[in-house]
Amino acid sequence: MSAFPDVDTIQYEGPDSDNPLAFRWYNPDEMVEGKSMRDHLRFSVVYWHTFRGTGSDPFGPGTAVRPWDDGTDSVDNALKRVDVAFEFFQKLQAPYYAFHDRDVSPEGSNLAESHKNFDRLAQALKDQQQATGVKLLWGTCNLFSHPRYMHGAATTCNADVFAYAASEVKKCLEITNDLGGENYVFWGGREGYQNLYNTDMKRELDNLGRFLHMAVDHAKKIGFTGQFLIEPKPKEPTKHQYDSDAAACLNFLRAYGLEDHFKLNIETNHATLAGHTMMHELDYAGMQNALGSIDANTGDLLLGWDTDQFPTDYYQTAQAMWMILKHGGLGSGGVNFDAKVRRESFEPIDLFYAHIGGMDAFAKGLKIAAAIRADGQMQSFVKDRYASWDSGIGAKIEAGQVGLEELQAYMLEKGQSDANTSGRQEMLENVFNRYIDRV
Amino acid sequence: MSAFPDVDTIQYEGPDSDNPLAFRWYNPDEMVEGKSMRDHLRFSVVYWHTFRGTGSDPFGPGTAVRPWDDGTDSVDNALKRVDVAFEFFQKLQAPYYAFHDRDVSPEGSNLAESHKNFDRLAQALKDQQQATGVKLLWGTCNLFSHPRYMHGAATTCNADVFAYAASEVKKCLEITNDLGGENYVFWGGREGYQNLYNTDMKRELDNLGRFLHMAVDHAKKIGFTGQFLIEPKPKEPTKHQYDSDAAACLNFLRAYGLEDHFKLNIETNHATLAGHTMMHELDYAGMQNALGSIDANTGDLLLGWDTDQFPTDYYQTAQAMWMILKHGGLGSGGVNFDAKVRRESFEPIDLFYAHIGGMDAFAKGLKIAAAIRADGQMQSFVKDRYASWDSGIGAKIEAGQVGLEELQAYMLEKGQSDANTSGRQEMLENVFNRYIDRV
Amino acid sequence: MSAFPDVDTIQYEGPDSDNPLAFRWYNPDEMVEGKSMRDHLRFSVVYWHTFRGTGSDPFGPGTAVRPWDDGTDSVDNALKRVDVAFEFFQKLQAPYYAFHDRDVSPEGSNLAESHKNFDRLAQALKDQQQATGVKLLWGTCNLFSHPRYMHGAATTCNADVFAYAASEVKKCLEITNDLGGENYVFWGGREGYQNLYNTDMKRELDNLGRFLHMAVDHAKKIGFTGQFLIEPKPKEPTKHQYDSDAAACLNFLRAYGLEDHFKLNIETNHATLAGHTMMHELDYAGMQNALGSIDANTGDLLLGWDTDQFPTDYYQTAQAMWMILKHGGLGSGGVNFDAKVRRESFEPIDLFYAHIGGMDAFAKGLKIAAAIRADGQMQSFVKDRYASWDSGIGAKIEAGQVGLEELQAYMLEKGQSDANTSGRQEMLENVFNRYIDRV
Amino acid sequence: MSAFPDVDTIQYEGPDSDNPLAFRWYNPDEMVEGKSMRDHLRFSVVYWHTFRGTGSDPFGPGTAVRPWDDGTDSVDNALKRVDVAFEFFQKLQAPYYAFHDRDVSPEGSNLAESHKNFDRLAQALKDQQQATGVKLLWGTCNLFSHPRYMHGAATTCNADVFAYAASEVKKCLEITNDLGGENYVFWGGREGYQNLYNTDMKRELDNLGRFLHMAVDHAKKIGFTGQFLIEPKPKEPTKHQYDSDAAACLNFLRAYGLEDHFKLNIETNHATLAGHTMMHELDYAGMQNALGSIDANTGDLLLGWDTDQFPTDYYQTAQAMWMILKHGGLGSGGVNFDAKVRRESFEPIDLFYAHIGGMDAFAKGLKIAAAIRADGQMQSFVKDRYASWDSGIGAKIEAGQVGLEELQAYMLEKGQSDANTSGRQEMLENVFNRYIDRV
Ligand SMILES: [Co+2]
Ligand SMILES: [Co+2]
Ligand SMILES: [Co+2]
Ligand SMILES: [Co+2]
Ligand SMILES: [Co+2]
Ligand SMILES: [Co+2]
Ligand SMILES: [Co+2]
Ligand SMILES: [Co+2]
Repeated sequence: MSAFPDVDTIQYEGPDSDNPLAFRWYNPDEMVEGKSMRDHLRFSVVYWHTFRGTGSDPFGPGTAVRPWDDGTDSVDNALKRVDVAFEFFQKLQAPYYAFHDRDVSPEGSNLAESHKNFDRLAQALKDQQQATGVKLLWGTCNLFSHPRYMHGAATTCNADVFAYAASEVKKCLEITNDLGGENYVFWGGREGYQNLYNTDMKRELDNLGRFLHMAVDHAKKIGFTGQFLIEPKPKEPTKHQYDSDAAACLNFLRAYGLEDHFKLNIETNHATLAGHTMMHELDYAGMQNALGSIDANTGDLLLGWDTDQFPTDYYQTAQAMWMILKHGGLGSGGVNFDAKVRRESFEPIDLFYAHIGGMDAFAKGLKIAAAIRADGQMQSFVKDRYASWDSGIGAKIEAGQVGLEELQAYMLEKGQSDANTSGRQEMLENVFNRYIDRV
Repeated sequence: MSAFPDVDTIQYEGPDSDNPLAFRWYNPDEMVEGKSMRDHLRFSVVYWHTFRGTGSDPFGPGTAVRPWDDGTDSVDNALKRVDVAFEFFQKLQAPYYAFHDRDVSPEGSNLAESHKNFDRLAQALKDQQQATGVKLLWGTCNLFSHPRYMHGAATTCNADVFAYAASEVKKCLEITNDLGGENYVFWGGREGYQNLYNTDMKRELDNLGRFLHMAVDHAKKIGFTGQFLIEPKPKEPTKHQYDSDAAACLNFLRAYGLEDHFKLNIETNHATLAGHTMMHELDYAGMQNALGSIDANTGDLLLGWDTDQFPTDYYQTAQAMWMILKHGGLGSGGVNFDAKVRRESFEPIDLFYAHIGGMDAFAKGLKIAAAIRADGQMQSFVKDRYASWDSGIGAKIEAGQVGLEELQAYMLEKGQSDANTSGRQEMLENVFNRYIDRV
Repeated sequence: MSAFPDVDTIQYEGPDSDNPLAFRWYNPDEMVEGKSMRDHLRFSVVYWHTFRGTGSDPFGPGTAVRPWDDGTDSVDNALKRVDVAFEFFQKLQAPYYAFHDRDVSPEGSNLAESHKNFDRLAQALKDQQQATGVKLLWGTCNLFSHPRYMHGAATTCNADVFAYAASEVKKCLEITNDLGGENYVFWGGREGYQNLYNTDMKRELDNLGRFLHMAVDHAKKIGFTGQFLIEPKPKEPTKHQYDSDAAACLNFLRAYGLEDHFKLNIETNHATLAGHTMMHELDYAGMQNALGSIDANTGDLLLGWDTDQFPTDYYQTAQAMWMILKHGGLGSGGVNFDAKVRRESFEPIDLFYAHIGGMDAFAKGLKIAAAIRADGQMQSFVKDRYASWDSGIGAKIEAGQVGLEELQAYMLEKGQSDANTSGRQEMLENVFNRYIDRV
Repeated sequence: MSAFPDVDTIQYEGPDSDNPLAFRWYNPDEMVEGKSMRDHLRFSVVYWHTFRGTGSDPFGPGTAVRPWDDGTDSVDNALKRVDVAFEFFQKLQAPYYAFHDRDVSPEGSNLAESHKNFDRLAQALKDQQQATGVKLLWGTCNLFSHPRYMHGAATTCNADVFAYAASEVKKCLEITNDLGGENYVFWGGREGYQNLYNTDMKRELDNLGRFLHMAVDHAKKIGFTGQFLIEPKPKEPTKHQYDSDAAACLNFLRAYGLEDHFKLNIETNHATLAGHTMMHELDYAGMQNALGSIDANTGDLLLGWDTDQFPTDYYQTAQAMWMILKHGGLGSGGVNFDAKVRRESFEPIDLFYAHIGGMDAFAKGLKIAAAIRADGQMQSFVKDRYASWDSGIGAKIEAGQVGLEELQAYMLEKGQSDANTSGRQEMLENVFNRYIDRV
């Protein structure tokens, strides 16, 4: 029985379509830079917001109308959700999905029962993956909702909770592997602190290092060849999250000898909560060979919490896709819609509108980015701007042939440095608008 | 001739004094944890704000009345300022000062003239250091004010400007060495970008790595044994500064093999602009053996720019001193007042009020921190909170004796993790207030 | 049966006490400026956070251990809570409490049943008020949690929901009146918008005006003589709340002819979310005779949401009490702890620690404020600073005797204005610290 | 002699043009909703940023290369600037400009000399206005740069400074009148406070009320029929500006009986610094008949200061123009580019690129807004959403026919309110993108 009987598979109808249930930009087979949109974008739907989100917020309970869901945390209900989810993935033409263990599988009365539930659900997911061809972008553990994780999971003050979390990660890693998951993600939802008065930050971070090494070791043991990813976020739910931003994650990975095993899953709303643009975080991760995947959403910069809104702004999507193309694409990662409909958009159909809008915005963003690259004007500008480094004193510096003494001798003779050239920010912003206009 | 004829050396008069030109808390010889306040705090006055600040802001020119200063950038005027500065340092009982090259010495018409000016001024500083006993906490180069540095210095697109900056650093490092400076600081005032459309971030950071390695090499050559420090700041003047926060600096240092040569100079206002508390940045740097020195000031968290206000809040100073004591003190660093009087506080006497307030706030902060440590209640709370790591499964984890498999087996048998205990944040905040009350 | 068998009535033991279950500053009968602390502070405990808060947040369910609460929304459970609440109020020596209708009384299956439940609970509250002497500071309606209010209550697009909300306000106003509530509060939890694309702001605000006029009319009809209060908040849960800050509320009240009927209930955390200090909002409301009551808490300025933490910072409490004393006290209002324990502080005893800390911080704040006023130095400074307005041209301006022409003639003759004097911000901050030290 | 010999009058070449010195969207004579683009947009260039901006910032002096400007504050130099400015206005096809007195005319050694200078410059401006047809959108006084205004102008603690400011306003109002200025603006650059410890806010606001009444009275006397405008801004340069946002301004105007004489000049960057969207401030002002003019720029929401960047984002310009069309246009106001080129965009040609980009972005924004209105789908959605107010109980409420009693009776009978409908935010955001795509 269909959960969305009034919705057919969403089709590409082109920019002139007024059909709110059609793609205007996402045309899966359309080739961009020699690769299909499908393969560039690797869209993924998240199980948590889309199939477990209720619309609750700190000031009110859920509002979402989900006729297929009886609101219980039973295995039967969970199994029903699987069918609905895969109907949604298919109708949306989304090639991937992502989950936390607890999204798909209910917590049991003890660890063994939780695992048993998870096995049951994993089989259902596997069946549906085979039936539909939809694949698992990544799995992860929810190590932040249950009260046992109130003080953290890998960074808890309660060693037993670390052990519990480790047990869950082992299970989820194995199931992710079994389902062909292409990545495994760590988002440290409560790996941080509420107050330093009661916190031993060094001990907590040391334990986080141990935790991740255990996961790496176990992956090797079970033959999981997917990519490990860390998802930075600076705050919320904790006052301070250890994986604050790309830099904090990479510093941690380097400090604990984990840099060869992890890349980053960059989320737009987390980037801005940390005071960075998404474009910065992508370029920063990319230049360190650490760009793994993205959580595609948008925040509201006038609000101070993670709104996880669907992305619709072409500037943002074009900038993101530009950086992704620059750094060679997302590899085993994808464009994962870690985004939720507003509490007031409570009908099932809103889930379609929201995802279609996000997919179209990223598809147009991809085309804009490709147009920028094909045209080459912006990249040439940058290349020319740094031309002084390609010869003369610049080339010597980059070749490591000079030190402070040689540079001082050079400049004492010269007296003044060569003149600067205008940065032309305004002109470049206008040029960027050309591509917005013309795609 | 005195610049402050109406001000005698500021004396400690104790908390009951109403004299605005006396210390109420800073009592240099008072012993705290077996060391004098003077040696704990190592107060330093900054040349830039205190002797070059005019009170200008983006909406109006300077207001400061400085009768000793003729407003020109002449060497003579610069020499006069030296005498005034050291009179101020002495009357304030500040054992240290800090400068940028351009604070003390005028830019010449070419590099050679700039160096000649600097030599002349350095001699005057040296004479005053010897005459007064005031010492140089650190020197640094101003590589952000002159228009040549508009696109950055070490991270400029103009290789000649890199060479110019290198020449200045060489000179300033040598003079800092000659003056017995105990540290040398890099604050990357324009090492960042205004817009990624025109920026090759990777190339810029590679060049920054080269630049710092050159400084390290030259220090070895000239026998400079002071500590190199990087001062993080996330934004302002640029849209994005590369040395955003402690984590970004440490990741950079690790990525470029510089981690053994640099520590951090943490500034309160920069910490908060980056979304962190000062307490966090100090603990984070300290736990990685990277806490070098602090720029003591405060920001206004309802404003979004670097207000560099004088610190007067006991909560902030007590938290800072607590972390500093925890991590073994500031070593060759100090409590450096990178702070400026408000534009409306335009009289010379306001410079005294401001510094006295900051020194008293840090002195009381030191006493509060020492009281917390002597009493031990807060530290014991933390130790007890992590007790589960000291034996049993926790100890095994920390000893590296178990992996995911062992932990899963352990927890499958146990079924549930041991109960959590309350974090007691509110109680601890109340306990903290006791020390505020009782010092 | 006691819910807190291990806690006796909290007693004042003075600043030297180490007893975490004693007051160190709040001494109810101590006289300050000729009035008891009890009467100055009029402390109030909120039913919602303290007896209905679970510790849930957007990333996890509740953690709070509340042995007296069976977790259901039954009338029986609600009745049991009443006894616990009044035991808590009494043991805390809190003279007041405050509630939303839904805090104390369960939603029924229809409006009539909700009213019936409320009548039953109101009787229980009344009985306990009489038995204990604890009084109702204010009542209010929860017009934001139930899904019917998703688009607002008075500002909803659904006229029926407005009618429903009006019905609830009528009931709650009558019960507040019956319980001797001294104020009635409107906090517009969803009176705002999520997006202007779907919003008719003018129509919504017109309806809000109508709604409040209806309440005023009904109060007159039933003889409710308490004070109506509006509580400003700029955002959360909606993207934009209409009652953003004191200025927005007062502009609204003036625009709709309601300014004689309403004062403001100012909350610290809402003030800072709006970009203002609490001190500003109190002074701004007070100068317009609109300071009604305060919601005493604190936010975390590095986070962007309403953390509703308990206030413990003496600077904040002293500034607040200074403004309150300046504007003649809180009248029928009070110091209402709209504050919640952290999710990790999940034991009942944490409720005591938290409130004791807040009460002590406000009691010490009151004493600091009174010391500032008694000493008079800061007020004299301000008076002197404006002395030019007390005679000469200043007095003429304030008397309305001159216009632009006279002023120009005056100044053309004079040529330049008299010199300014220093604002002395730093000195005043130091003076403020004296009172922190000495109380 | 031309200051821009290489630039001809900027021409409309259409969206396909790659000429960075052509308009791609601004086509002055193109009709939109029956009115030319020129008359809708009424573009205005600001004298301050464009002809007095140097590129200085708090960390470095000016960088701007302006060959026509000798850098002095002489009358001769000022006269030369006039010619350059009008050449620029003409080549840009900007119909309007705006100034502060001090932008165009140097401060003299006393008030009389300042006035004399201003008369001389006003004549030059008048000559150029007549020669070119460029008109004055508004004049204003700079009452914030000179040190005399350090404590404010109308809200200073120094009565003489109020008198000085009043004299300047009188002069500037007369010259604005003489030059046919269509508005007169007050931006309270230092009308606020740095710290409440030294501030009598009530007295300051009372004086501000007196100041504005004097201006209104004088306008009547001299026959100035232009519109008075207040420009809100929440902070910077002061910690708190009294005219924080539209609501604070309107509350002030109502409190002091000035609401009939003033409208608002809304600036994008000031709106966002106050925590509002530009769209909100425009709609809020418009619904109270107070939308006078706009300062068109954009801020960087990840930075906390007024960056005054040129607007290039089509979402922002379309939203702004939508609100402006909705509220009947800007009347005597205009789209005034209170925007400056970045410090690194230091060449004269960057001034052209910047303005062309802003004009094109607003022209496209106008077309998008008109398309939204012509299509009607978004407006119909809103109308339908509020349909419950057009009949039945909604209509009775809006007609004032019912109060709490009637509504309660109605709802008691009904039991539950009618169901809500989805807010459809995501769908509407997708619809908005259609217009971005299709214009
Ligand atoms: Co995410
Ligand atoms: Co998120
Ligand atoms: Co600093
Ligand atoms: Co700073
Ligand atoms: Co509140
Ligand atoms: Co609140
Ligand atoms: Co403006
Ligand atoms: Co501005």
